Amino acid sequence: MEQAEIGLIGLGVMGSNLALNIAEKGNKIAVFNRSPEATKKFFAEAGALQGQIIACETLEEFVAAIRPPRPIIIMIKAGEPVDQQMELLKPYLDAGDIMIDAGNANFRDTIRRFDSLKDSPLTFIGMGVSGGEEGARHGPSIMVGGTEDSWKRVEKVLTSISAKFNGDPCVAWLGNDGAGHFVKTIHNGIEYADMQMIAEIYGILRDGMKLSASEIGQVFGRWNEGRLNSYLIEITEKVLAATDPVTGKPMVDMILDAAGQKGTGKWSVIEAQNLGVAATGIEAAVAGRILSSQKVEREAAEKILGLPQTVAMPSTDGLSFLDDLENALLAAKIGAYAQGFAVMAAASKEYGWNLPMPTIARIWRAGCIIRSQFLDEITSAFTKDPDTANLIVTPAFSKLVQETDGALRRVVSTAVMSGLPVPALSSALAYFDSYRRGRGTANLIQAQRDFFGAHGFDRVDGVDKHHGPWGSGLNA
Amino acid sequence: MEQAEIGLIGLGVMGSNLALNIAEKGNKIAVFNRSPEATKKFFAEAGALQGQIIACETLEEFVAAIRPPRPIIIMIKAGEPVDQQMELLKPYLDAGDIMIDAGNANFRDTIRRFDSLKDSPLTFIGMGVSGGEEGARHGPSIMVGGTEDSWKRVEKVLTSISAKFNGDPCVAWLGNDGAGHFVKTIHNGIEYADMQMIAEIYGILRDGMKLSASEIGQVFGRWNEGRLNSYLIEITEKVLAATDPVTGKPMVDMILDAAGQKGTGKWSVIEAQNLGVAATGIEAAVAGRILSSQKVEREAAEKILGLPQTVAMPSTDGLSFLDDLENALLAAKIGAYAQGFAVMAAASKEYGWNLPMPTIARIWRAGCIIRSQFLDEITSAFTKDPDTANLIVTPAFSKLVQETDGALRRVVSTAVMSGLPVPALSSALAYFDSYRRGRGTANLIQAQRDFFGAHGFDRVDGVDKHHGPWGSGLNA
Repeated sequence: MEQAEIGLIGLGVMGSNLALNIAEKGNKIAVFNRSPEATKKFFAEAGALQGQIIACETLEEFVAAIRPPRPIIIMIKAGEPVDQQMELLKPYLDAGDIMIDAGNANFRDTIRRFDSLKDSPLTFIGMGVSGGEEGARHGPSIMVGGTEDSWKRVEKVLTSISAKFNGDPCVAWLGNDGAGHFVKTIHNGIEYADMQMIAEIYGILRDGMKLSASEIGQVFGRWNEGRLNSYLIEITEKVLAATDPVTGKPMVDMILDAAGQKGTGKWSVIEAQNLGVAATGIEAAVAGRILSSQKVEREAAEKILGLPQTVAMPSTDGLSFLDDLENALLAAKIGAYAQGFAVMAAASKEYGWNLPMPTIARIWRAGCIIRSQFLDEITSAFTKDPDTANLIVTPAFSKLVQETDGALRRVVSTAVMSGLPVPALSSALAYFDSYRRGRGTANLIQAQRDFFGAHGFDRVDGVDKHHGPWGSGLNA
Repeated sequence: MEQAEIGLIGLGVMGSNLALNIAEKGNKIAVFNRSPEATKKFFAEAGALQGQIIACETLEEFVAAIRPPRPIIIMIKAGEPVDQQMELLKPYLDAGDIMIDAGNANFRDTIRRFDSLKDSPLTFIGMGVSGGEEGARHGPSIMVGGTEDSWKRVEKVLTSISAKFNGDPCVAWLGNDGAGHFVKTIHNGIEYADMQMIAEIYGILRDGMKLSASEIGQVFGRWNEGRLNSYLIEITEKVLAATDPVTGKPMVDMILDAAGQKGTGKWSVIEAQNLGVAATGIEAAVAGRILSSQKVEREAAEKILGLPQTVAMPSTDGLSFLDDLENALLAAKIGAYAQGFAVMAAASKEYGWNLPMPTIARIWRAGCIIRSQFLDEITSAFTKDPDTANLIVTPAFSKLVQETDGALRRVVSTAVMSGLPVPALSSALAYFDSYRRGRGTANLIQAQRDFFGAHGFDRVDGVDKHHGPWGSGLNA
């Protein structure tokens, strides 16, 4: 029997979809699941793809079915189970075999797993897969971290299953050990920020302009034809247009306003802190989800504090405020993406990955949740200027910031006066205004720190005097 | 010879000042430093306090000089050196002796050190000391974590050296193991936020209203007579009034606007993330310091992006905008402090410390960097309602928020329109407006997450249907 080109362990929804995708693209695949029933069910439902699938009931049989050196995708619950699965698998493997964790791992775990195999003949790939179930089935964005040799072994299969943007495959080897999972984490962090910003604009349309869900859906639909064109705007239009089958009301109006979160938003913030990079858009988004989950507290607080009065906003008849909202969202997105890329640039240095920024933007253009035209523009900007200090000072994006930040200002100001929370939109504006100001206000902070803690300071004129004349005994 | 009541290792600036404070308050103290020269110098300069000090040249002599069970303060560079010092000390200690780390330790290290002695006859205290060098010398705020028994042994000495607020000592036992250092970390996080907010107001006065340093100092001086009365406002007035001895210009104008940071701001953010608490004021402050340190990038960005035009602001003749600035700063402070206390409340549950909120506010009223009248009001609020969900819904502070948030709105809006960065002020406003809104916008985020990831959602009407009607194949 012809051997499989690749193996996959874990036939949950994501694993099954990925396996079907691999089979459908003409790659023979061996599959295994802890419970053989799931394997049988998967095979039975594979229909026309059965000829490409070798369904195995034991790990021994599974490993034997794969062409060496064997790439084996592990797509199971992140954390401890991955380590356990690796231990179970090891005894059957031969030199050169590659275990591939395709789950949402913390990149620190990925580095640990990679390092644990350093002195063994086996290798490890940490692989970020974005696009949800639909992406896994028909074309995800794939971020690979590991050795270049191990990448060469899987390049063909992964290229075949990845999403394509104008024919260009959305998969790449990004660097050693944890590079792929780190980039996937920041992808998710940016996704948090993007979704929070959309939700803030939705709040202005709903609570400020008093539009209905379906009217708001139409606004997003129009925006999806323009520069905001993206998967997230597209699905925003769709969810706003959906009707609740139970009550006949707009679906979104029946959904509880308490958002869950998994680990990646939090990890993004923590790693940005560890790297000393400002990632305020992601921070605002994580805080937004936290506060959303405090529903009971918020309802109690509204009774005590009340809501501020909403100031008048231009109606939909006069389109200018809607134009402002569209441009404000675009401007704010630029801030969040610039921060995300800055975090990756710092991580690249810190961990020696040499992350290829244009490539990252390129493989996010299709397949993943934040896919958009916008990422094609980011790809161009980084391709022209891969070592730019910041996305917002590239020619294309500095122009875009200048074109749109006035709208962001007006929108934030209007929302602020109306008591409509816009933490993520505000964070982007503060980021621009801090980053573009050559002379900031931290001189006062340095003076204070020297006053109470004798921390010292540098001077603008380079004169070698590092403490202030605060008076005797104060910082003695 | 009469034995010492306590010992202290590490005669750097903080350690020396603390030792002199202990001696001055009538406690006999044994001191030791790695280099005996420093010990000799310290003793020589102790003057009239020499009678209270036993200067030791060896650890053996040092330990023997202290009355058992021996409390020994270690005041050296945080991190690895503390572990090394503990190992050097252990062989000389007897059952019941207490090693006290008084440095700025990460509370996770404190828990680790505490636990490492669990099965030994020795114990460990992690002690946060705030107030800078001046505080250490004449009365710091002291936050103690450890066993209640070990606290009893040091209570008298620490009470004698602590700052007093209207006679009330600013020291307390806060809970087990890492409680003291955790509270100190959040103290510093709040300090970061407070300083950033003051710097933002300073930026509006300087770059928006075009006031000179000395004029701005006068404004802060007036505010220090009112509800903002606090150490940080007091020193802000002082540093703004100081003249650079080199150039004769205002000192602050000659200081580079690039702020340093040690670990506590970052730790506060990371722990808030780990605990799932929104601490956006501290996040904004840490980001502010990060961006300030990117001075070269900012100067380049200003050349590319330019600065937005400042909108007209009321002059100092019309006092109303200055009143708004004063009230805005007060409102924003409330937000930052509420967040800091919320982080501590969550940590208290997570680590089983049972942190006494009114006590924490009480011991911050004097001695520490954030000492203020304001903290006396917080003490009252928590004393009346120790289990409040949030400071801002207590009767006193909900009233204060309602009185001042309008000013915060106007200030943020004006700054936003003028391109003056106000990330921390904005964060407080967004916090109020998110927290006080019973119906938020996360229903849209939940709809999106269900659409692309089949995450599911809860409904407002409790009906048991957890997925949206998004159409076939979309979230299959």
